[in-house]
Amino acid sequence: MSPQYPAPVALAADAARRLTALRAQRPLVQAITNYVSMDVAANALLAIGASPAMIHAPEEAEDFGAIANALVVNIGTLSTDWVVGMEAAARVAAKNGRPWVLDPVGVGATRFRDETTRRLLALKPTIVRGNASEIMACARIAGLHDEAAAPKGVDSAHGTEAARASAVALARRQNCIVAATGAVDLVTDGERTVEIANGSPLMAKVTALGCALSAIAAAFAAGAPDAFMATVAAIGVYGVAGEKAAETALRPGSFRVAFIDALDSVSASDVATRLRAR
Amino acid sequence: MSPQYPAPVALAADAARRLTALRAQRPLVQAITNYVSMDVAANALLAIGASPAMIHAPEEAEDFGAIANALVVNIGTLSTDWVVGMEAAARVAAKNGRPWVLDPVGVGATRFRDETTRRLLALKPTIVRGNASEIMACARIAGLHDEAAAPKGVDSAHGTEAARASAVALARRQNCIVAATGAVDLVTDGERTVEIANGSPLMAKVTALGCALSAIAAAFAAGAPDAFMATVAAIGVYGVAGEKAAETALRPGSFRVAFIDALDSVSASDVATRLRAR
Amino acid sequence: MSPQYPAPVALAADAARRLTALRAQRPLVQAITNYVSMDVAANALLAIGASPAMIHAPEEAEDFGAIANALVVNIGTLSTDWVVGMEAAARVAAKNGRPWVLDPVGVGATRFRDETTRRLLALKPTIVRGNASEIMACARIAGLHDEAAAPKGVDSAHGTEAARASAVALARRQNCIVAATGAVDLVTDGERTVEIANGSPLMAKVTALGCALSAIAAAFAAGAPDAFMATVAAIGVYGVAGEKAAETALRPGSFRVAFIDALDSVSASDVATRLRAR
Repeated sequence: MSPQYPAPVALAADAARRLTALRAQRPLVQAITNYVSMDVAANALLAIGASPAMIHAPEEAEDFGAIANALVVNIGTLSTDWVVGMEAAARVAAKNGRPWVLDPVGVGATRFRDETTRRLLALKPTIVRGNASEIMACARIAGLHDEAAAPKGVDSAHGTEAARASAVALARRQNCIVAATGAVDLVTDGERTVEIANGSPLMAKVTALGCALSAIAAAFAAGAPDAFMATVAAIGVYGVAGEKAAETALRPGSFRVAFIDALDSVSASDVATRLRAR
Repeated sequence: MSPQYPAPVALAADAARRLTALRAQRPLVQAITNYVSMDVAANALLAIGASPAMIHAPEEAEDFGAIANALVVNIGTLSTDWVVGMEAAARVAAKNGRPWVLDPVGVGATRFRDETTRRLLALKPTIVRGNASEIMACARIAGLHDEAAAPKGVDSAHGTEAARASAVALARRQNCIVAATGAVDLVTDGERTVEIANGSPLMAKVTALGCALSAIAAAFAAGAPDAFMATVAAIGVYGVAGEKAAETALRPGSFRVAFIDALDSVSASDVATRLRAR
Repeated sequence: MSPQYPAPVALAADAARRLTALRAQRPLVQAITNYVSMDVAANALLAIGASPAMIHAPEEAEDFGAIANALVVNIGTLSTDWVVGMEAAARVAAKNGRPWVLDPVGVGATRFRDETTRRLLALKPTIVRGNASEIMACARIAGLHDEAAAPKGVDSAHGTEAARASAVALARRQNCIVAATGAVDLVTDGERTVEIANGSPLMAKVTALGCALSAIAAAFAAGAPDAFMATVAAIGVYGVAGEKAAETALRPGSFRVAFIDALDSVSASDVATRLRAR
């Protein structure tokens, strides 16, 4: 824990404030995300209080990038023509000084994903969010080590603790925020590392909740000078909502419904009292 | 209110009759709609009693257009190759005398959307449905005025009353039905204008419910000689279902579920007694 | 009923064992499926205990086919560029000796679907699953008879009994398993034919549940030497889950939620006692 690291109580209070600010600001989040996650990501953004726009065409990158407050790029259902739109949007976000989040779904599983991730990392995402396997694969792609990280599909084969060194090295190399999420989430800027221990195991039983979290991270980063604290807040609020949902729903179908409800109902006070970050 | 305008009670009774007829006819609705809305639009069509088919390839436009009873074209997640399929399907619908609905999602936000909307308006949609900002942008694109309508993403920045003049002018210029939907919905054919005041604020908290409404409007217009009254019925039934759903669900996740249930359970009698149109 | 045909009790016990085995194995299922079904198919796979990956690019066919345990190809929302990926993935599955399932959605409705189905049938799917109209159209495409099978969109215009001869002939010609699903489901390998009478009429009121079943069939076929019994198990478990869901949900919106819950909660014991196969 580095000296400038905020105390747990301060982290929770900060996250609570950021949730209130997000709802007041209602940021417009451009999402270039996979087909599976579009529905739940858009509904998650609406429920938390942001405004989603699923716009991926390169023809629109310039115009829409001028009005969007943040961008998320997710490579879940990849194809060559979409990569063109992803790169165009990322360039515009960088040019306009808007934060953008990379979600490298399934990187490590195919060379096409590795190559696409390499190209997108070169465009300097503000935040990289993935599971442990994906973060380890990103570090490998960034030339940081030879750690073999071959995820089984899009699920993580590793706990996040196994990705800690990769996450820190990647954050330093890329000068960005890296979040490895799982049962315990790690967020690092290469100097500070926060662990967040909220959430529910049911979140892994619903498709695309990781993808939707990346979109929520973009919403929190919109207009925030400190992307590190914004990422901590996004993951913390998301986990608290997951816990609230798990209080009433025990199976994945009803959990998904309850989770969207919880993103709508979760209060700053819930976050301040429940966030377990250190 | 023009002389031929039906009384509120007659509007409600007419909408109720059309709902019964739709369920008996079970129209086949071809939907070329955005990725975000496909799921909820297909489920909404099934729940109301129609048969959905999400078919977008230009190679299929001729064959499928021969059996579809109506078409909806929605530009939410736009790309160049899809525009080809949209135009092909719209041409076939026009050739076969089948109604088609244009939902110009996000028009005004990018030049690509404006240009696509211009091309689709030239193919003479039977019904144009959008939020106030989108209808105002369509009117501008149709050369009707210079009103600056720059929607914030896909949400409307305006109440529908602000779009009244645009809607009427657009309906006259295009010789079509225009529906501007929001807290209060306006439907106009350029001569008659009906206001509908059903629905629930929760409908704006669930993604793609506007898109699904456009698909429902296509279902009501299938085989109906009077597209104006069909559009009023579609919007009215949808709003009554939204009110029924809001009686049991208070948050967006559970509201979406309850809303699909309500499209299935809403009865002609519900519509006849609850529709607030004038 | 041919001599080697298992008794109903043995079928139920076998299906129950296969469910337990699937959950232990957690097979990785690559799904190239339509946009409408991606969400529900992925959630159904997760709920039953499999690991979904929606990966369609031809660039990834080789790499991902090396790790996937099974493949499902669904032509619901078809376009030329996707057909390239479908063919590439099917070739890799065949080369690697992995089972693959073809779901020929809407075949018979357009020449593009017929031609695509012809190409995919030539790549020797392990299992073909469709409604009665689709199976009849497949038989016609395979040159087996001239039976006119023009489905109305993607819904079946026929009961499965009408497709029995087509299913058996297709299974023999293709040397594969054919499943025609509806109120009563037929599964045949050309010699044996099993009828399964589980499920709920509500399943036809939720979009893409047939598509999700094809994905579930791929999960059951993963690593199973007997694709016939695997298909019977998949359809049987699915139908039992549908019945469980219908015990608590009466409308399509809530049924969909309850159905995903039921895929998670359905036990080997439920299957052993409730499966109605003969």
